[in-house]
Amino acid sequence: MSFPSLDDIETPAALVDEERLERNLAKASAYMREHGLRWRPHTKTHKVPELAARQLQAGAVGVTVATPREAEVMGAVADDVLLAYSPVGASKLARLMALPRRVRLSVALDSREVLAGLAEAARGVGRTVGVLVELDLGMRRVGVQTPEEAVALAREASGEEGLEYQGVMFYPGHLRMSLAEQGPALAEVSRRLGTFLDALGAVGLKPGIVSGGSTPTLWRSHEVVGMNEVRPGIAPFFDRASAWMGACGWEEVAYSVLATVVSTAVPGQAVIDAGSKALAKEELPVEGYGALLDRPEVVVRTISEEHGVLDLSRTAWRPRVGERVRVVPNHVCVSVNLQSELWAVRGGQVVKRWDVTGRGRGPV
Amino acid sequence: MSFPSLDDIETPAALVDEERLERNLAKASAYMREHGLRWRPHTKTHKVPELAARQLQAGAVGVTVATPREAEVMGAVADDVLLAYSPVGASKLARLMALPRRVRLSVALDSREVLAGLAEAARGVGRTVGVLVELDLGMRRVGVQTPEEAVALAREASGEEGLEYQGVMFYPGHLRMSLAEQGPALAEVSRRLGTFLDALGAVGLKPGIVSGGSTPTLWRSHEVVGMNEVRPGIAPFFDRASAWMGACGWEEVAYSVLATVVSTAVPGQAVIDAGSKALAKEELPVEGYGALLDRPEVVVRTISEEHGVLDLSRTAWRPRVGERVRVVPNHVCVSVNLQSELWAVRGGQVVKRWDVTGRGRGPV
Repeated sequence: MSFPSLDDIETPAALVDEERLERNLAKASAYMREHGLRWRPHTKTHKVPELAARQLQAGAVGVTVATPREAEVMGAVADDVLLAYSPVGASKLARLMALPRRVRLSVALDSREVLAGLAEAARGVGRTVGVLVELDLGMRRVGVQTPEEAVALAREASGEEGLEYQGVMFYPGHLRMSLAEQGPALAEVSRRLGTFLDALGAVGLKPGIVSGGSTPTLWRSHEVVGMNEVRPGIAPFFDRASAWMGACGWEEVAYSVLATVVSTAVPGQAVIDAGSKALAKEELPVEGYGALLDRPEVVVRTISEEHGVLDLSRTAWRPRVGERVRVVPNHVCVSVNLQSELWAVRGGQVVKRWDVTGRGRGPV
Repeated sequence: MSFPSLDDIETPAALVDEERLERNLAKASAYMREHGLRWRPHTKTHKVPELAARQLQAGAVGVTVATPREAEVMGAVADDVLLAYSPVGASKLARLMALPRRVRLSVALDSREVLAGLAEAARGVGRTVGVLVELDLGMRRVGVQTPEEAVALAREASGEEGLEYQGVMFYPGHLRMSLAEQGPALAEVSRRLGTFLDALGAVGLKPGIVSGGSTPTLWRSHEVVGMNEVRPGIAPFFDRASAWMGACGWEEVAYSVLATVVSTAVPGQAVIDAGSKALAKEELPVEGYGALLDRPEVVVRTISEEHGVLDLSRTAWRPRVGERVRVVPNHVCVSVNLQSELWAVRGGQVVKRWDVTGRGRGPV
């Protein structure tokens, strides 16, 4: 199979540096082994079954998914799938129940309504679905608020035919400070988690799985007392936010969007053919929507749908129309979601094409 | 053909109120006729050829597109296609040159590099491509800066075999104030435009087409002296930004994303299954990433990939898990770009499915 060269490939195009990807997988895997953590990577970041398969080969115990489509796509390569989002509605439940029988499905939930719907769907097809009670440990998005609510939901899950109570889950998405500054926040997460674990343990509902984690907090996961599973999504690729938070070095970033300079008419800037429909428009506390992989001092200052404006004020580099650059977006997950395919690059050559088959919402 | 009901359709799902769409098309068409303006709607908003066909039936002179794929898709229904973005690179040029011969293609550009590449490609296949010289009238994204540069580029376009100089183009994307406050800014656009038109006229390069416009400034287009064509994109659908700027009333908004409440665990809010992968995360000077169509006082306060958090502080309404809502996103173009299909709704019933075939970058 032949692939376009980096000079010929039509831009914008999403590139993955395969050597960096491999190093990132090996590093995550080693960290998990060292700390005795179960690694259940979130596949919403890459949405590519081949990449999930690599994570499983590297030691992941299963995968995390966000949507029924991701469950379908990843279910082809994984036997253990956690849907970390409450499925509501007949269509979503039917698709989940139609997953191959070899797939152990578990679901995170925070309400009796979702639990009841899931139990009914599971009984309807004669499946048993694992349940993780979702806890709010400070993010204030989803999750039960008190140990009493967690106990009530865990008890209900334990007693429902079609369901199997497996433990608890949380997402510390409110921890966006740099790695070096996370200590107090992680201690507070541990403290809050402890109140839930104590209450559940006291009534004989000690969780087998205590699932948490994110890429920003990944390398300090072992400090969260009681957590035994983590679900980082971004870690195979990383992005500008990860580097900014110190979860990776710039030289570890494996994902970038290849773009072409299409205008230099306005002084002090160059305009590329990658905008919010290729990079996504997500803010960081620092300026810009992305930065050049090879010139991180050059940021994408403003962004519109098909245009990104490179700020040239901190560089002597003056690109010509037609020149190509690689942009690291602020948030890789939403950039991948804008791509039909990812191109694996090794030694400056495109060596593989991965279709982003987990993208979209319809059945596979 | 039967379609899912609004109660059964899997969420998130993009809905278009077909009666509002029709009223919006009729209103735009009437405005153009009244003011003698050529209407060349930007199809990047909807990316649906059937909707472009309706715009043409309603009196549009042709369509505007952003990408080679949109040109391919829209070229099936339109005989006159303006690519309002400089095409750079062999692949893009080859795809444009392969458009059906009946399609009159024109391209906006602001550099000799793009002009030379386009001319060579056109000559290579024996086509003639129209050229609009792009002017920067204050947005500072793309476009030549001075009348002298415009004259030089127009002259070059006039003399190149394969190209036909047709006029000038600009985009007043820096005008984001409310409709009522646009007067001075539009006068300044007119003044700057006048300097370009005077210089071009003085050397016998008076533009036939003077193309501008946007949805925020749509209804005051006739105040821009010398402009004879407008390219609104958002106007068939509108969105929260349009309503906020006064380009439409809330009751004219035709696009929304149907979503389901999946969690009410955190007090004071409800969480829906539509996040940045369905609504897109775009800021406005007012709070939130969207608002409920039927309860505009309820805004999507925060957004993550698959979750939107509804702020219930300004309503007595307390939704249950499973309840469905329609969300008007801040910016419709980037929300449509996240959909595989749009569902036309009439009288509470889904009556059509439009595939968003202009989405993505590969050839059709």
